[in-house]
Amino acid sequence: MERSSVYHRPTDQFAYPYDEESLHIKLRTKRDNVDTVELYYGDQYEWVDGKWISHKDSLEKIGTDTLFDYWLIQIKPEHRRIRYGFLLTSASETILYTEKGFFSTAPEDPGYYFSFPFLHTSEVFRAPSWVKDTVWYQIFPERFGNGDPTNDPKGSKPWASEPPARDNFFGGDFQGVIDHLDYLVDLGITGIYFTPIFKAHSNHKYDTIDYLEIDPQFGDKEKFKELVKKCHENGIKVMLDAVFNHSGFYFEPFQDVLEKGEQSKYSNWFHTPDFPLKGGERPNYATFAFEKSMPKFNTQNKEVKDYLLEVGRYWVREFDIDGWRLDVANEVDHQFWREFRTAVKEIKPDLYILGEIWHDSMPWLRGDQFDAVMNYPFLTNVLNLFSKETITAKEFVENMTSVIQLYPENVNEAAFNLVGSHDTPRILTECKDDLNKVKLIYTFMLTFIGTPCIYYGDEIGLRGEMDPGCRACMPWDKKEWNEDLRNHVKGLLQLRKSEKLLANEGSFQFLDTSDEQACIAFMKKSKDKTIVVLMNPTSNELEYSLPFSLKGKKMTDLKEKREYAAEADQLSVHLKAYDYSILAF
Amino acid sequence: MERSSVYHRPTDQFAYPYDEESLHIKLRTKRDNVDTVELYYGDQYEWVDGKWISHKDSLEKIGTDTLFDYWLIQIKPEHRRIRYGFLLTSASETILYTEKGFFSTAPEDPGYYFSFPFLHTSEVFRAPSWVKDTVWYQIFPERFGNGDPTNDPKGSKPWASEPPARDNFFGGDFQGVIDHLDYLVDLGITGIYFTPIFKAHSNHKYDTIDYLEIDPQFGDKEKFKELVKKCHENGIKVMLDAVFNHSGFYFEPFQDVLEKGEQSKYSNWFHTPDFPLKGGERPNYATFAFEKSMPKFNTQNKEVKDYLLEVGRYWVREFDIDGWRLDVANEVDHQFWREFRTAVKEIKPDLYILGEIWHDSMPWLRGDQFDAVMNYPFLTNVLNLFSKETITAKEFVENMTSVIQLYPENVNEAAFNLVGSHDTPRILTECKDDLNKVKLIYTFMLTFIGTPCIYYGDEIGLRGEMDPGCRACMPWDKKEWNEDLRNHVKGLLQLRKSEKLLANEGSFQFLDTSDEQACIAFMKKSKDKTIVVLMNPTSNELEYSLPFSLKGKKMTDLKEKREYAAEADQLSVHLKAYDYSILAF
Repeated sequence: MERSSVYHRPTDQFAYPYDEESLHIKLRTKRDNVDTVELYYGDQYEWVDGKWISHKDSLEKIGTDTLFDYWLIQIKPEHRRIRYGFLLTSASETILYTEKGFFSTAPEDPGYYFSFPFLHTSEVFRAPSWVKDTVWYQIFPERFGNGDPTNDPKGSKPWASEPPARDNFFGGDFQGVIDHLDYLVDLGITGIYFTPIFKAHSNHKYDTIDYLEIDPQFGDKEKFKELVKKCHENGIKVMLDAVFNHSGFYFEPFQDVLEKGEQSKYSNWFHTPDFPLKGGERPNYATFAFEKSMPKFNTQNKEVKDYLLEVGRYWVREFDIDGWRLDVANEVDHQFWREFRTAVKEIKPDLYILGEIWHDSMPWLRGDQFDAVMNYPFLTNVLNLFSKETITAKEFVENMTSVIQLYPENVNEAAFNLVGSHDTPRILTECKDDLNKVKLIYTFMLTFIGTPCIYYGDEIGLRGEMDPGCRACMPWDKKEWNEDLRNHVKGLLQLRKSEKLLANEGSFQFLDTSDEQACIAFMKKSKDKTIVVLMNPTSNELEYSLPFSLKGKKMTDLKEKREYAAEADQLSVHLKAYDYSILAF
Repeated sequence: MERSSVYHRPTDQFAYPYDEESLHIKLRTKRDNVDTVELYYGDQYEWVDGKWISHKDSLEKIGTDTLFDYWLIQIKPEHRRIRYGFLLTSASETILYTEKGFFSTAPEDPGYYFSFPFLHTSEVFRAPSWVKDTVWYQIFPERFGNGDPTNDPKGSKPWASEPPARDNFFGGDFQGVIDHLDYLVDLGITGIYFTPIFKAHSNHKYDTIDYLEIDPQFGDKEKFKELVKKCHENGIKVMLDAVFNHSGFYFEPFQDVLEKGEQSKYSNWFHTPDFPLKGGERPNYATFAFEKSMPKFNTQNKEVKDYLLEVGRYWVREFDIDGWRLDVANEVDHQFWREFRTAVKEIKPDLYILGEIWHDSMPWLRGDQFDAVMNYPFLTNVLNLFSKETITAKEFVENMTSVIQLYPENVNEAAFNLVGSHDTPRILTECKDDLNKVKLIYTFMLTFIGTPCIYYGDEIGLRGEMDPGCRACMPWDKKEWNEDLRNHVKGLLQLRKSEKLLANEGSFQFLDTSDEQACIAFMKKSKDKTIVVLMNPTSNELEYSLPFSLKGKKMTDLKEKREYAAEADQLSVHLKAYDYSILAF
């Protein structure tokens, strides 16, 4: 057995309260190196006749990636505390893995074992309960709809009259969103994520001038209130974008520092080791990237903290928004986010907090900061398989398993999955206009674990390269829509609404795939029902045999909306190129 | 190369700010499996001509245990942010290890690499600066000195007139400590950790009746104020013991719940799923262990939280104490401790917060909760080598390396090391009265990294089995003291004061040891000076050759207080059974 590959630590994804009574305990071993894993455990304080009382239970192998097997057990410790080790068995040996190393006979002292000292109900990771059923729609407000020409910025171009550029404007606004709410309701989305709406300089509004004012090109506060109210009436949640890592160049306190230097009362609001401030290619003050027009906030300064936390509270308290998406969230300090969470959840306990983090995000997902992060590893992996075809189905499943196994399961259930945003090329463009690929990508995203987000216009086949190309005006002439794609997305959203297993209920598991049988196959399962999703990401036809018996089960094809008469124990499903199947039993 | 054994994650001990400008980045590989490790890194935003700018630097192998090699690099990223991977070289291959797996050629997209997004100065783990120079002395107040017979509990026995028992009293009090402060100053300790002093029922006072009152047997608040003042005048810090996991049976709110059940206004102060409360062997309410007289606080209840946080603040604000030791700290929720830290540090920013946790404590040592935990793994390992002789010197070094490598270095520097407490047998008893072993144990503890704590009386050779045996009265007749032991401890404390390298300055590294040459050897090193500590934990003589050249170096023997004339390049040190040597150059 390869002992040096065995990994567990009683924290993060390896040991956590899954619900108010249950713990999840996970173990990672070298792939194909261990045959069975059992938990050897007990209550630290439970002794009889001077002997510690211990029990045994099996872990289940829940996933495999390139290098590792992952094992899980869900357990309800009677007194909410547990000491435990892992009994690992291979063909050649059985050994016990504990906090103090490996043993061939179990130590009698529970002090040698891993400890999860107490399951506090307050420490269950809980994103707001509405999140797992939500399907998001991302709107870049300058480009979704122009409902009120009177507030158009000077020099605005007629809607969609030219390609999106770094500095052009088309007059998109709140009224434009209100005017098209019926479109969104018809599509079936249940949450809107707006990129920034506060007073700013650019068309993307990530360079905030005033965090407490609406940008006049979008409307006023009354109009925004109306928008939120109408969204809520239509069962749609509203999430705003908070840029708290840096301000815009024209943010008044920064202008004051530029002007007065060390004498400014805001001189400590930014990271400014030297005065006077110098911009250029390498500013002498900290910024986002090296962008001189985006000075980095000193979020350890109490005044800055008070100001930004009040911004966080203000839009929740006064406008009843349902979520905050936090821009460049990884570059702001953890303590700031802890206080942010406390501040906004005091006003609205079921507010959703979503961080923009592109890499491993565990340190922000320990329950004290964010409810979710934007799942860019999901995006990378989806593109590599479905559009770029640089990885095989087997590699895709392994990579996705690696991503899932980075986090607790209740974190994965609230993950914010996306296949496009204002920061990436449009998905149809990524797929080189291959509609079948885009449809299959949506099939995957809308049936996988996590909460999906559709970038405005992707569903009707908008094209565009990396920004600014991906920020085109939403066309409102139906003739410009790809109705086939829209109906595909709409159909999946309807299915997701009626089949709760598709919206983060039950357990998730990938089914076997191989380089020969290049099928993406996964299963979602509750006590009463199982749904299997099969996808063919290749241009060849394929035949996939479900790796379990269906004897006596009534099978429904949810895509074709018909019942199968499963004749044999084994069901083999035929999939055309880029086709899929969703089966329930 | 065994890829499945390579471990890194940009959090906890693997990546952390070591000081205001430097990061520590660590990697774990299978023992003897990788020859060299280099960091391949850059600033995510630094590109030239469309190419990401990357650099290379070597990691140093800083330790080895049974299964692993540990590698470290200290690095100052110019703009406080870094993306990085590890170039691993063995005889057969060189591969790059990144967040997204292993690559034979370096990915060009920094998004594939590990990320430490920003080094915030506020996120440097900082125990109060005085802690690393402090030597603690633990006092069990009922047994240190009886300075005021008028406050003796009814039925108190004459001092040391009988063995310590579960329920006897000898009248120890604050005046007794004040009377013997000169003894402590002479010994050289600089901090006192008092086990609980609040009004309680038992002689150990862990069953609090009133958290805001001094137990009358110890004196009153004025007397405690005097004690703290006199300690401070003598350069001695004062740490109190907070039992916030559970109250005592006679704590008024619990009595109220016992009496009134669900009608009590305190009915939510404890974990009481059923009424009426039933005690017995398995109480129907949560307790410490299964101890019916120690009901567990519901620290998620705001009233409880407010009450206990005010207790935390009160003794700091009114009595100027310097530290809180937190009993059964692992069974209280993290959020409570976060708020506790904020509350008490608001009053006294350099207050020390020490948690009682016996197992892997990383989740409490991330900077938002404790400054240190009681280092029981240190104790176990010390006992196994020096007193029980169940492990070899080589195993000792490997085990101690495993413990050190669990945490960031600045956490290790503030660790609370102990070789005895009110919860363990006396160290002389553990060593079966072998004075040489006890002396060697003190040599180790007082020269190793971390802040040591001496359990009252251990330094003069008090004996005693597991509690209550280990809680005997401190004898004040010098004839009962083991002066040899006391002088040994006192001498080491003096040395530690004059040689800052022995008090957590500089870097730490174990030197090679083997089963043949069973010497414990380690090195502490600053820019200007190196100290080597050598210990022979066996009953045989041994000869240890320092594994580096000393050519041209002036060597001082700090134990024998003489200068070496190092004649050869290699120095070989002769150590008698249980002897040691401390060399500086």
